[in-house]
Amino acid sequence: MEMSKVIPVILSGGAGTRLWPVSRSAYPKPFMRMADGESLLYKTLERALRMASDGHVLTVTGRDYYFLSRDDYARHPQARRDRLPFLLEPTGRNTAPAVLLAALYVRHHFGADATLLVLPADHLIRDIDAFVADARRAAALATDGRLVTFGIVPSAPETGFGYIRMGALIAEGDAAASTAIRKIGAFVEKPDRETAQRYLDSGEYLWNSGMFCFRADALLEAAQQHCPDVLAAAQACHATASGSGSPVEFGREAFAAMPDISLDYAIMERAGNCAVVPATFDWSDIGSWKAVSELDADIQTDAAGNRIRGSAIVVESENCYIQGDKRMVAAVGVKNLLIVDTGDAVLVADRERAQQVKLVVDQLRKSGHDSARFHQTVHRPWGSFTVLEDEADCKVKRLTVKPGGVLSLQLHHRRSEHWTVVTGTAKVRVGDREFLLERNESTYIPVNTLHRLENPTEADVHLIEVQCGDYFGEDDIVRLEDKYGRAGSSIDKPAA
Amino acid sequence: MEMSKVIPVILSGGAGTRLWPVSRSAYPKPFMRMADGESLLYKTLERALRMASDGHVLTVTGRDYYFLSRDDYARHPQARRDRLPFLLEPTGRNTAPAVLLAALYVRHHFGADATLLVLPADHLIRDIDAFVADARRAAALATDGRLVTFGIVPSAPETGFGYIRMGALIAEGDAAASTAIRKIGAFVEKPDRETAQRYLDSGEYLWNSGMFCFRADALLEAAQQHCPDVLAAAQACHATASGSGSPVEFGREAFAAMPDISLDYAIMERAGNCAVVPATFDWSDIGSWKAVSELDADIQTDAAGNRIRGSAIVVESENCYIQGDKRMVAAVGVKNLLIVDTGDAVLVADRERAQQVKLVVDQLRKSGHDSARFHQTVHRPWGSFTVLEDEADCKVKRLTVKPGGVLSLQLHHRRSEHWTVVTGTAKVRVGDREFLLERNESTYIPVNTLHRLENPTEADVHLIEVQCGDYFGEDDIVRLEDKYGRAGSSIDKPAA
Repeated sequence: MEMSKVIPVILSGGAGTRLWPVSRSAYPKPFMRMADGESLLYKTLERALRMASDGHVLTVTGRDYYFLSRDDYARHPQARRDRLPFLLEPTGRNTAPAVLLAALYVRHHFGADATLLVLPADHLIRDIDAFVADARRAAALATDGRLVTFGIVPSAPETGFGYIRMGALIAEGDAAASTAIRKIGAFVEKPDRETAQRYLDSGEYLWNSGMFCFRADALLEAAQQHCPDVLAAAQACHATASGSGSPVEFGREAFAAMPDISLDYAIMERAGNCAVVPATFDWSDIGSWKAVSELDADIQTDAAGNRIRGSAIVVESENCYIQGDKRMVAAVGVKNLLIVDTGDAVLVADRERAQQVKLVVDQLRKSGHDSARFHQTVHRPWGSFTVLEDEADCKVKRLTVKPGGVLSLQLHHRRSEHWTVVTGTAKVRVGDREFLLERNESTYIPVNTLHRLENPTEADVHLIEVQCGDYFGEDDIVRLEDKYGRAGSSIDKPAA
Repeated sequence: MEMSKVIPVILSGGAGTRLWPVSRSAYPKPFMRMADGESLLYKTLERALRMASDGHVLTVTGRDYYFLSRDDYARHPQARRDRLPFLLEPTGRNTAPAVLLAALYVRHHFGADATLLVLPADHLIRDIDAFVADARRAAALATDGRLVTFGIVPSAPETGFGYIRMGALIAEGDAAASTAIRKIGAFVEKPDRETAQRYLDSGEYLWNSGMFCFRADALLEAAQQHCPDVLAAAQACHATASGSGSPVEFGREAFAAMPDISLDYAIMERAGNCAVVPATFDWSDIGSWKAVSELDADIQTDAAGNRIRGSAIVVESENCYIQGDKRMVAAVGVKNLLIVDTGDAVLVADRERAQQVKLVVDQLRKSGHDSARFHQTVHRPWGSFTVLEDEADCKVKRLTVKPGGVLSLQLHHRRSEHWTVVTGTAKVRVGDREFLLERNESTYIPVNTLHRLENPTEADVHLIEVQCGDYFGEDDIVRLEDKYGRAGSSIDKPAA
């Protein structure tokens, strides 16, 4: 049987508040780096490219994450930017609208018989070969017009996942019965502990992974039948799509008019032609620091069960997970703790209470504390900046400008700036003068003076900025021109 | 009875490794700030001045702590620098040599009948009036030639202190028998838990506080009788004292030749004319983070027994002590923890294992890690600096220069420096030019160029220094002149 074209669709977003302080709304879970230095998003792209016909992978994500995602993708040797289109959501939305918009896009660009392989960007799968084998089986089923989901064989009575009760056999997979492809008996809600144990013991239930595979036309037909209102709203939104190139943006109102409903609930639970592929690959949804602490690779475990990433000293402590950054972490006489340290915040949590980390973020949001949203390092289309000092008399930043990166033409009313280049060569405009600023050279930008910083070279530029003044808020930036469209309505949030 | 002149003697030093990461060898326990913002050393000076005849207080401390101590003292409204002499120890030594050198100094400058009131700088006493009352009683006894020690009425079966068994009554104190002055029955070593409980129950034992009171001549006579070798070595060392002004330094070899022995062991345990004053004041030796967490004032306790200094969010946690700095600390589902956060290190310890924090410092020292010794902020005779960034391509510091502070005339072979003044007005020499650098002005110091920074004003100068080069070690400083004697053999360690 000839398979139709497979277009992987990466769904990337979500706050991941249980993974604070590493995951924050401006830098959420898909961007979180594992011990090997790669982000979950990058790893998802890696999987997707293994299944992609001609290297095409579609990504659906928030506008704020566009440049960050593109930078992450650009590091992959097989990634070609013209084959990695983006659909940008103006606000967070549920999976049914996102997947329907993806299906409409895929039908338009790749044909109605093209197959979507939907992959959330915040899952970790290590055995890519097994993933590819399962995805191929799913794609073969999808060619028949089936709506396929992937079920994870449960290893514990988890109460944090929905389950899938398996129905009749469709086709034999491997020798092991658990990997045979089945019809779907039922989708069931997150169970209590006792019910979860029963599900586990019965061998008839799988975790609902949120990964799917179906032909564009099959999904859209099912939508027409089971949720015509969602489909109509998605079509209306699709009609507002900006131009034909990537990134695709949508009309804000048309987008907001789509119902907030999951694909499971809108279509999968109602359609008769569904199937589930029990996964033969390992899987973690990295749902909490406990899950991170239990990942089996890359980090050594000492005799007392402690696992350490970064600099730490452990004295008479057991079963702790410590993830540090630049600072020294010391644990003395403690057990079963998760200790996660970042530039501006540290978390100390009981391993079994890891789910409650989200309550910290709730409290931080209520109090308006920045550490709910931003890291000490903030990513921008042109690169990133790290705040080194923020005091009443000055603010000091390290700026990293990517090759070709251009900050907006701007001025400030309440601060002057002193720039010193410490790596590379920058092009600088100050007032009417434009000049190159080499490593170990500095310049001064007085208050109310137009200025612009760019990197005309092929290598990163690093620059130390010392701001003097009486107010250093990001809102004292008057933008006159911006390469990334941030002077008017914008893809990114207002900032340097 | 007329009291002789009382000269308080502050013994300041000691690593305080149990209080890492706040106490470090370059900034040890006496400099640790309590919740009210004052250091233990400052508080000791405050007590001392209440007892000092004519405001004279002698301090015995390490050479590395001289400028830091003087700055701390200078903030006291009644402190007069010409009445606060220092004896500087080239290396750490035990209490017998330190106190004998103090007695020789006091006899020389204030007469043989002057009374020493010896006060360790790392104790916390809140009820100063009660302290003064007890110290007066001790001084009265000392006038009679007695060697007086202060005993603390035990409140728990502590195993970390030595004890004093009280002997016969000398004089009635208050109505309460426990405050009556006694002869010393015996000095006893740190007991085990059971013995400590027995001592506590008996009512006949006091904690040995390490505070003393005696006339200079009485102590020196007792030394002649009970430890003539230590006295002879102290006299030899005293003879090497530098000039007559403060600070007094000693010959390194003569100092090192003094035996490493405590005053208790060398004299107090052997002398017959001792007395103990049971303290009527509160007392803590701040021996561990547990002790800090139990201090009763200045910090609010929530309903679950958590106490927080700094920014913290606590979720379903009990009985934790959290001391933060600038960063956010979050505790989730934890109990009985001590969490102490500083600019470059964080400690998480079980409250009952607080003594073992010293093992962290042992490990850091073994591995040569800077955080055993230095803070992110390093104190210097002219002020302080804080490292904001230390990367391969640059090092960024905030410098604070005190009024009148002058950095050494220096040059660097492997780095250039960019200075921007953000508060105040500095006087700068670069090569042969000398000029004022105002707030929001910057200057550049090329490699191999002589330069000097000073503060000619009455207010602090803050300056951001960006170093560019390929090596940023403190040993790439060639000093040509130094106001604080650091160009040749030095009081302070080599540094900016």
